[in-house]
Amino acid sequence: MIRHGIPQDLTKYQNKAHVLVEAFPYLNRFRGRIVVIKVGGEILLDQQGAENFARNIALLNSVGIKVVVCHGGGPQISSLMRELGKEPTFLEGQRITCRDTLEITSMVLLGQVNRKLVSLVNKFGSQAVGLSGVDGNILQVRKLDERLGYVGSVELVRCEPIQMLLAGGYIPILSSLGSDGKGESYNVNADIAAGEVARSLHAEKLVVLTNTEGLYENFDQKQGLISEIDLSSLQTLKEQGAFSAGMIPKIDSVITALQGGVSTAHILDGRTDNVLLLEIFTQQGIGTMIFP
Amino acid sequence: MIRHGIPQDLTKYQNKAHVLVEAFPYLNRFRGRIVVIKVGGEILLDQQGAENFARNIALLNSVGIKVVVCHGGGPQISSLMRELGKEPTFLEGQRITCRDTLEITSMVLLGQVNRKLVSLVNKFGSQAVGLSGVDGNILQVRKLDERLGYVGSVELVRCEPIQMLLAGGYIPILSSLGSDGKGESYNVNADIAAGEVARSLHAEKLVVLTNTEGLYENFDQKQGLISEIDLSSLQTLKEQGAFSAGMIPKIDSVITALQGGVSTAHILDGRTDNVLLLEIFTQQGIGTMIFP
Amino acid sequence: MIRHGIPQDLTKYQNKAHVLVEAFPYLNRFRGRIVVIKVGGEILLDQQGAENFARNIALLNSVGIKVVVCHGGGPQISSLMRELGKEPTFLEGQRITCRDTLEITSMVLLGQVNRKLVSLVNKFGSQAVGLSGVDGNILQVRKLDERLGYVGSVELVRCEPIQMLLAGGYIPILSSLGSDGKGESYNVNADIAAGEVARSLHAEKLVVLTNTEGLYENFDQKQGLISEIDLSSLQTLKEQGAFSAGMIPKIDSVITALQGGVSTAHILDGRTDNVLLLEIFTQQGIGTMIFP
Amino acid sequence: MIRHGIPQDLTKYQNKAHVLVEAFPYLNRFRGRIVVIKVGGEILLDQQGAENFARNIALLNSVGIKVVVCHGGGPQISSLMRELGKEPTFLEGQRITCRDTLEITSMVLLGQVNRKLVSLVNKFGSQAVGLSGVDGNILQVRKLDERLGYVGSVELVRCEPIQMLLAGGYIPILSSLGSDGKGESYNVNADIAAGEVARSLHAEKLVVLTNTEGLYENFDQKQGLISEIDLSSLQTLKEQGAFSAGMIPKIDSVITALQGGVSTAHILDGRTDNVLLLEIFTQQGIGTMIFP
Amino acid sequence: MIRHGIPQDLTKYQNKAHVLVEAFPYLNRFRGRIVVIKVGGEILLDQQGAENFARNIALLNSVGIKVVVCHGGGPQISSLMRELGKEPTFLEGQRITCRDTLEITSMVLLGQVNRKLVSLVNKFGSQAVGLSGVDGNILQVRKLDERLGYVGSVELVRCEPIQMLLAGGYIPILSSLGSDGKGESYNVNADIAAGEVARSLHAEKLVVLTNTEGLYENFDQKQGLISEIDLSSLQTLKEQGAFSAGMIPKIDSVITALQGGVSTAHILDGRTDNVLLLEIFTQQGIGTMIFP
Amino acid sequence: MIRHGIPQDLTKYQNKAHVLVEAFPYLNRFRGRIVVIKVGGEILLDQQGAENFARNIALLNSVGIKVVVCHGGGPQISSLMRELGKEPTFLEGQRITCRDTLEITSMVLLGQVNRKLVSLVNKFGSQAVGLSGVDGNILQVRKLDERLGYVGSVELVRCEPIQMLLAGGYIPILSSLGSDGKGESYNVNADIAAGEVARSLHAEKLVVLTNTEGLYENFDQKQGLISEIDLSSLQTLKEQGAFSAGMIPKIDSVITALQGGVSTAHILDGRTDNVLLLEIFTQQGIGTMIFP
Repeated sequence: MIRHGIPQDLTKYQNKAHVLVEAFPYLNRFRGRIVVIKVGGEILLDQQGAENFARNIALLNSVGIKVVVCHGGGPQISSLMRELGKEPTFLEGQRITCRDTLEITSMVLLGQVNRKLVSLVNKFGSQAVGLSGVDGNILQVRKLDERLGYVGSVELVRCEPIQMLLAGGYIPILSSLGSDGKGESYNVNADIAAGEVARSLHAEKLVVLTNTEGLYENFDQKQGLISEIDLSSLQTLKEQGAFSAGMIPKIDSVITALQGGVSTAHILDGRTDNVLLLEIFTQQGIGTMIFP
Repeated sequence: MIRHGIPQDLTKYQNKAHVLVEAFPYLNRFRGRIVVIKVGGEILLDQQGAENFARNIALLNSVGIKVVVCHGGGPQISSLMRELGKEPTFLEGQRITCRDTLEITSMVLLGQVNRKLVSLVNKFGSQAVGLSGVDGNILQVRKLDERLGYVGSVELVRCEPIQMLLAGGYIPILSSLGSDGKGESYNVNADIAAGEVARSLHAEKLVVLTNTEGLYENFDQKQGLISEIDLSSLQTLKEQGAFSAGMIPKIDSVITALQGGVSTAHILDGRTDNVLLLEIFTQQGIGTMIFP
Repeated sequence: MIRHGIPQDLTKYQNKAHVLVEAFPYLNRFRGRIVVIKVGGEILLDQQGAENFARNIALLNSVGIKVVVCHGGGPQISSLMRELGKEPTFLEGQRITCRDTLEITSMVLLGQVNRKLVSLVNKFGSQAVGLSGVDGNILQVRKLDERLGYVGSVELVRCEPIQMLLAGGYIPILSSLGSDGKGESYNVNADIAAGEVARSLHAEKLVVLTNTEGLYENFDQKQGLISEIDLSSLQTLKEQGAFSAGMIPKIDSVITALQGGVSTAHILDGRTDNVLLLEIFTQQGIGTMIFP
Repeated sequence: MIRHGIPQDLTKYQNKAHVLVEAFPYLNRFRGRIVVIKVGGEILLDQQGAENFARNIALLNSVGIKVVVCHGGGPQISSLMRELGKEPTFLEGQRITCRDTLEITSMVLLGQVNRKLVSLVNKFGSQAVGLSGVDGNILQVRKLDERLGYVGSVELVRCEPIQMLLAGGYIPILSSLGSDGKGESYNVNADIAAGEVARSLHAEKLVVLTNTEGLYENFDQKQGLISEIDLSSLQTLKEQGAFSAGMIPKIDSVITALQGGVSTAHILDGRTDNVLLLEIFTQQGIGTMIFP
Repeated sequence: MIRHGIPQDLTKYQNKAHVLVEAFPYLNRFRGRIVVIKVGGEILLDQQGAENFARNIALLNSVGIKVVVCHGGGPQISSLMRELGKEPTFLEGQRITCRDTLEITSMVLLGQVNRKLVSLVNKFGSQAVGLSGVDGNILQVRKLDERLGYVGSVELVRCEPIQMLLAGGYIPILSSLGSDGKGESYNVNADIAAGEVARSLHAEKLVVLTNTEGLYENFDQKQGLISEIDLSSLQTLKEQGAFSAGMIPKIDSVITALQGGVSTAHILDGRTDNVLLLEIFTQQGIGTMIFP
Repeated sequence: MIRHGIPQDLTKYQNKAHVLVEAFPYLNRFRGRIVVIKVGGEILLDQQGAENFARNIALLNSVGIKVVVCHGGGPQISSLMRELGKEPTFLEGQRITCRDTLEITSMVLLGQVNRKLVSLVNKFGSQAVGLSGVDGNILQVRKLDERLGYVGSVELVRCEPIQMLLAGGYIPILSSLGSDGKGESYNVNADIAAGEVARSLHAEKLVVLTNTEGLYENFDQKQGLISEIDLSSLQTLKEQGAFSAGMIPKIDSVITALQGGVSTAHILDGRTDNVLLLEIFTQQGIGTMIFP
């Protein structure tokens, strides 16, 4: 078998080589390190975006980065509640969670969102394994506020099952439920859970995917996009009320992680294709980077 | 600190010692071995029975037996379907599973039954971790029959995530969903899944908990309770039509396991308290034991 | 092959299950831990009691408890001395040990008592291995008192050979001889040796088998059986002269062990069948427990 | 610290992401695998090309590919010979190597070429370690032809020192000297040495860098550039005399490697920047690929 | 601190260097290998010879040779029997062993000979550990001949306790008692035991120390000292009746070992100082070497 | 096969045994320990002495001592310089090293001296592997003095490649070149390099071979040979100017090593056969021993 070619001008491919030359030091730096990625239920609403996200996750894993995904499922929970004749109610941005709502939340998170994320990632290998914070009492919680019902505040993270799966080359995908250790499950804010998990795992990075380009100094008018900010400046801005209510748990998640030793946190636009690859492997400034 | 006692007649406690003398050889024999236990969704309908089951599972784990639980959730699935306005339909005993039914099945199995079993066991420790056959493509399936829709037939069992958790001292609790590896999930008969998992894990025992005392030679009239039976006799009885339709998947599960090298299989009455402890640690003949 | 049974009332076996439910937490707690058991030569005088003791030792080992037996051989030594025409003499309860007596002691301990204990335990497996404190200079001693001759006081315990055997699943059975490291052997009190060995091994428990039900506050009249006592109360009682001369080495052994970090010590009646199983695996208060 | 950015159009960076998506599967496939790269002394004649080569080597190593470099030093040897007043002579393309010439060859290969390659690669880390085939008798040789003097034919490759360095994350850079095991060193053709080393290491790839674009079917007129060719076609072409004398050792090296189980061999143009990165991590057809 | 010396003529020490140059290849060859040494009770009758033997054993161990000593105790057993008023009786060279004789044998072997050998070796370190074939049922035996009483024939050697001690750097010293696994001990010929142990341990060498210079072709007249002999010639000589009755068990021991894969066996004169060092580390032909 | 021998008088070989009895404790003490040996290029000028040295190195390695050889090549460098028409020049005993001289130095050290030492040692096995301080940037240097040109002062020793080879049973032979980590090589005094390497490796011994019998208190007249000296006395003598210029780097090497934790240093006469064996394995006082 002989196949002929024509002499090639390889100089036109040098840009490819330069991307690799740019990317490889990051590869080397992040291989074996843990990156915790928070994603909302919205990711599943756009099938193509969801597949792109899943392929990114699988690629990160394939090059030796230890990826942990932490997800919520707000839109899907509200949708099933309405289908079952229950109107969602909120108190200061948190879902009021009676026992029925908890059951619906659990079914949506574990039976819908988690399973679908696992299935999507596993199209690119067999590496994703779904967990919830109830498994192995990973997220040990206590009741946050009587008025909210079964909403939990994280007291303790037991990382062993996550670390065991990471050591085996798997990608743990964690639903934000918690357990009180006495047989009762609780709804946990997924942003908060991601920050706690990143801290406990001594992650290298926490990435919070959201639907804005990053943090703005004037959030309402989306003006003053922040490219980099340190932790104390972020806390100052938060105290000044710069951020919307929906952004607060993400800010708190970032603060928890950085205070706990995570090297950098990132708030990125989850609607951009390949945003994870671009953030990790290029020098492009993307979204908002927060450092200690 | 001094506390006085009165001289005791320890002879009256010798029966305790004799139970231990009886039990310890089994302990020694089964420590480090894998026991796969199939349980139906019915187990959760009786809170006290469910707790007793969970405590038994935790005790087996605490003495070094590697326990894998495989569960279904028939009654709960039908119940949620009706709540959402869908009437369950069956073909030759198998649930016809359209896409909506699959979603409901997934939500019930993962979000209800699995999570509750995990929570109950974790009241006695933090060792249970829920999985489904979609995780890590543990149960790789293909469509069983076009008429049944999303019902899968097991083609391959990938044991690594289960073995990793067992090696870490955890109790994997597996929902009987499968994956086609291309992003689609399937409903899998839980009895069949248990047999396949037992075979793949080279389990020592498969225990199928059901709501009869064991196998009867005349099943309709519950006459002729079978205490022990070998594999070929079981296959003969099956061919003679001795068993009811509902018993057939359990029989097939046992056959799969024993043909695959599992040492013994047991069909036991799940309604009896401590039936697992009694079967494993005493010389009492309980339910039906099937051997190769 | 089909064997039929009759439907059983398993409720009548629930007491067996309850014994296991009571015992398993202890199993879990003591597995992998070291229990040092002191036994006198008297144990061999009753063949049935000796077999019961050996079976208990083998059972403890079979469930993963690391058992070390430390024994003496008083009656047998005196008996052989008389057979060889020498009258045993004692000074303050200690055997005066000339060179001939030392040879006799060595022959009885190693050639009779140790070998027979090893043989009895090995009827229930092949796990016992006999040692003396001369092996690997396990018990390094110096002369205790010129008037006593070859009676040694323990200066150093070298645990390695014992730990190596324990790690291999064996049951070391140790004769209470010691070595001065210069080629000379010495007689060592077996109670004292047991306490020193328990301390050096960081044992979980020291069990001293004797022929009373435990400690009595008034030892002479065997009144006031002590069920539990702490270390400082025990020392006070000892200073008050509450204990007989024969009991003093056992008390000292317990003190050595507890001061060295052993969790609990027990003085039990070696004449009771299964006293080891009952002490370790039941909630029955047995004999005297001493805690730090 | 706050640094602002302007909202970015990340779509323009998607081509970077696509390069990574293209490259990562290769990364995954070649990580931990061995790639043997043959390079001539010419590489050092162009400082910039040499640095580019060294950076490529360091990048491959940094992403987990196990790189072994095998080099010659023809131009430098002839140059030093002339400086010392000796005229190079050749027989059928092989350098006639008297004892003095061997000393000069050894000094040039080890003291000049090897050391400079090591130094250049170590500018990008500290990973390169120079070796010759005399070290650990890696290349055990016998005299090839009396007329050639100290020119060796490889009889045995002892890989241990190379594998030890690879396991430690180092990049072995091997000079093509050999040893007869009796204290005598020999000059070895570097192409041949590379093929033997690739075979012995069970390398995944052998890359022979040369100064043409690849193999031509008509080598003299550089017509008919071969893109892919299988081993038997290559052997046929060789027998038909298609290749120049200088190309023969490279062809033989490829044949040795592929017959010994190396997956693919490549003849590439060493003058092209980043040719190693482009070959390994892109789908561009580059140079000539030979497969078994 | 300064200490002056006078210029030395080191050439006069070159003979020391030559001994080392001669010895080191043997060191290298035997390090980590097992050498089983059979010694009779006679060794203890000469205190200086016994110390020399013990120092040799300790030296072999100190340079990494794994030494196992297997001993009997004939003279000492007969002596204690007479002291206790029993006359030793023999049948075809084997001691008739009633139960009392067995007890005496056990006491002498374990309590006298073994302990003293252990003590002597431990003067040069703490490495010797005494065992008997009853420990861990190392020597599993059955009754050899009803007429002989408690004399055992080796059925099975369980090496684990010996190998565990060797792996830990200890020197196992084994008394030739065996066990029937049912609680009964038996007297075993020490020569035979040594051969069986050497075979089971896949020893490199079996050394049988005796009180002649080696094997003679004409044993009675001690003529025709055999320097080397192969296994089949040895068997032929044995069949021709060349050897005395006392030599037969030694011959059989050698045959067992060599047939079981031991590389060489040696019959050496135990009365010669340092005979073990000379045999192993010099090229001197010593005693009789038997090879397969 | 039978070979006869004549009865031997083994007493005449007892002196061999006594050498071993003397040597084995040293074997035991130095096995697994690192000995760094500095040798000059002069060693190669006498072929027989070189072979004797190589055999000694191979023997030390064969008995488990981890040997590192560090060499220079003064005479050979000057010789090649002259051959290439350059006159060697020195400043305060250090060679002035322009770029050309560096190239010559590198070629001589790596291509001549190192390769020949490796070849000689490998005649006695395949264990020697040549390295220079440029490999893996083992010797990281900075320029010592502008006037000296490419002469480096050691800033950091990276031991990993050396330790990796030692762990694999190899003998690293190190040329005294260094690297500035930016691609430039430097000449390093071999005595100094040896001391730095010994310190970094936590060597047990540093042996500096030279061509005198040791240190003299009056070096010029070679009077007052010092047998033993402690570090502070050595420093005092040095400050008093007792030593010749050529001896100073050796003295400094010894000081560096001892201050860094090396147990003893030795200055020995490299012209004496087997001087390494005699120093390490006998009680003869040889050369000068320096201790902390």
